[in-house]
Amino acid sequence: MATETAQPRVFTDANGIRQFSRDQRKSGNRIALVPTMGYLHEGHLSLIKAARDMADIVIVSIYVNPTQFAQHEDFGVYPRDEEGDMRKLTSLGVNAVFAPLRLYASGSSAAAGSDAGNVVGAGEHQKGAHETFIQVEQLQQPLCGKSRPHFFRGVATVVAKLFNITEPDIAIFGRKDYQQLLVLQRMARDLDFAVEVVGMPIMREEDGLAMSSRNALLSSDNRQKALSISQSLQWARKMVEDRSAVSPSELHDAVASRIAAAGGRVDYVEVVDGSSLEKIQDVTKQPTLIAVAACFGSVRLIDNIELS
Amino acid sequence: MATETAQPRVFTDANGIRQFSRDQRKSGNRIALVPTMGYLHEGHLSLIKAARDMADIVIVSIYVNPTQFAQHEDFGVYPRDEEGDMRKLTSLGVNAVFAPLRLYASGSSAAAGSDAGNVVGAGEHQKGAHETFIQVEQLQQPLCGKSRPHFFRGVATVVAKLFNITEPDIAIFGRKDYQQLLVLQRMARDLDFAVEVVGMPIMREEDGLAMSSRNALLSSDNRQKALSISQSLQWARKMVEDRSAVSPSELHDAVASRIAAAGGRVDYVEVVDGSSLEKIQDVTKQPTLIAVAACFGSVRLIDNIELS
Repeated sequence: MATETAQPRVFTDANGIRQFSRDQRKSGNRIALVPTMGYLHEGHLSLIKAARDMADIVIVSIYVNPTQFAQHEDFGVYPRDEEGDMRKLTSLGVNAVFAPLRLYASGSSAAAGSDAGNVVGAGEHQKGAHETFIQVEQLQQPLCGKSRPHFFRGVATVVAKLFNITEPDIAIFGRKDYQQLLVLQRMARDLDFAVEVVGMPIMREEDGLAMSSRNALLSSDNRQKALSISQSLQWARKMVEDRSAVSPSELHDAVASRIAAAGGRVDYVEVVDGSSLEKIQDVTKQPTLIAVAACFGSVRLIDNIELS
Repeated sequence: MATETAQPRVFTDANGIRQFSRDQRKSGNRIALVPTMGYLHEGHLSLIKAARDMADIVIVSIYVNPTQFAQHEDFGVYPRDEEGDMRKLTSLGVNAVFAPLRLYASGSSAAAGSDAGNVVGAGEHQKGAHETFIQVEQLQQPLCGKSRPHFFRGVATVVAKLFNITEPDIAIFGRKDYQQLLVLQRMARDLDFAVEVVGMPIMREEDGLAMSSRNALLSSDNRQKALSISQSLQWARKMVEDRSAVSPSELHDAVASRIAAAGGRVDYVEVVDGSSLEKIQDVTKQPTLIAVAACFGSVRLIDNIELS
């Protein structure tokens, strides 16, 4: 085991990290993967701490995945801080970092970002661009799938690649990206990946804002207005606990109107079954998710609350 | 190593065969997978012999995959011979057989066959039907993809499952299913499977008919007529060698007219680039594939010839 102050081993190519992982497995170690897009915050660090508790070896991947961004989205301005990330990973005793420069075969028409850096991976024995995609056909459709139709296809595909490259026993994701978690759990089950996909609780700033790398892109004015998301979700939970509202439409309207009143552009507020993400009639009948996406300025934020 | 007469170990559940494979890997053995739909013929046996040459341990999977059949296709009558298969696998010294009864989560709307036997796999931690599919978006489209639009999606998905369950170093397929081979090689590369996907030459009956489990479904009359496929492909090769025809359209017409004259219903005759499966102008400019699909009675046969 690395000590808390040892530098993680850094791999930029697939063969190197896979061999590292196989050597660890051969030694009987249990391996956890924490996939990230870098710009690490306390939310990521909580995932890494959980990984340390659940496994012997922790691998963190850092890769801003072009295939989950559409052309008009914020791939180009997604925040990056490689030095800061390495300091945090070192202080947490992470064993290995997988930080590929490129992860897709060249010329991929599928890569949305124009500066996607989409060149050849090692070991290929065929010409031609990346063209293989994984779709979780039902769970990818509602919520974020409506406004970002290629998002979960890009997420599922890159995570499958990361699973095949790093060969972990367990992979850890945050519950802020609740739909992503369900999509990846379904993918792992359906495709028989030998990987347990685990979701950890949302980490929040002291004032309640869900932690996100995108928070850094908010103006201070919008940072304040964005509190309306978590506050309205707390309000909705209280309405349910008090039985003052249990219909999805009442909850929707209460949350949406509060965010709009604060100046947010609501993408969606959905009150759905927490397993299927299907619309429901009565939130007292099953574990329920209230999920929100809203823009403040040009920054799109998501958050959710689980009612059981 | 098993002796030539030892019975293979038979696994029907994913966890059992995966543990077998992991134990073998830990012992330093190289593992080959030969995926089949059973009803084994000399073509399969040649793949298994190649697997023995290329690896220490040979796993053969037997599973008639419902997701690669459309509703109107021959899933229900696809030939089966479990006892005969086991005798052949034993005589070849196969180490393990993976023969799942069911490989997809329950209630899958994606399973085409009505008697598809589509129930829960082990280890799942979510309710809900199988809904995850892999698409190799370009290579799946031409040739068989036109008349069987869901075929390669079903093939890619089940092979990904088999890769994740059996964790082989190498997987062996026949070149009769040439497009399938390209699709699976592309999938393995694009998704970073640590599996080398290898294609072996077409095995033929003495009279030239490409070996296929579906040949058993032919009437003796149609069995004779179906020789027109391999004979017309040989004729086309000779035309190219003699430089008496090098244009794709001439070759198409020569092959298609011979098969039609023999009583076959031509699904397609395509003269394409052997790597991209794209249409070409001149067969002397690159490795070229002539691929055929034709029906004799209700039996659809495919065959191909590679010109280099």
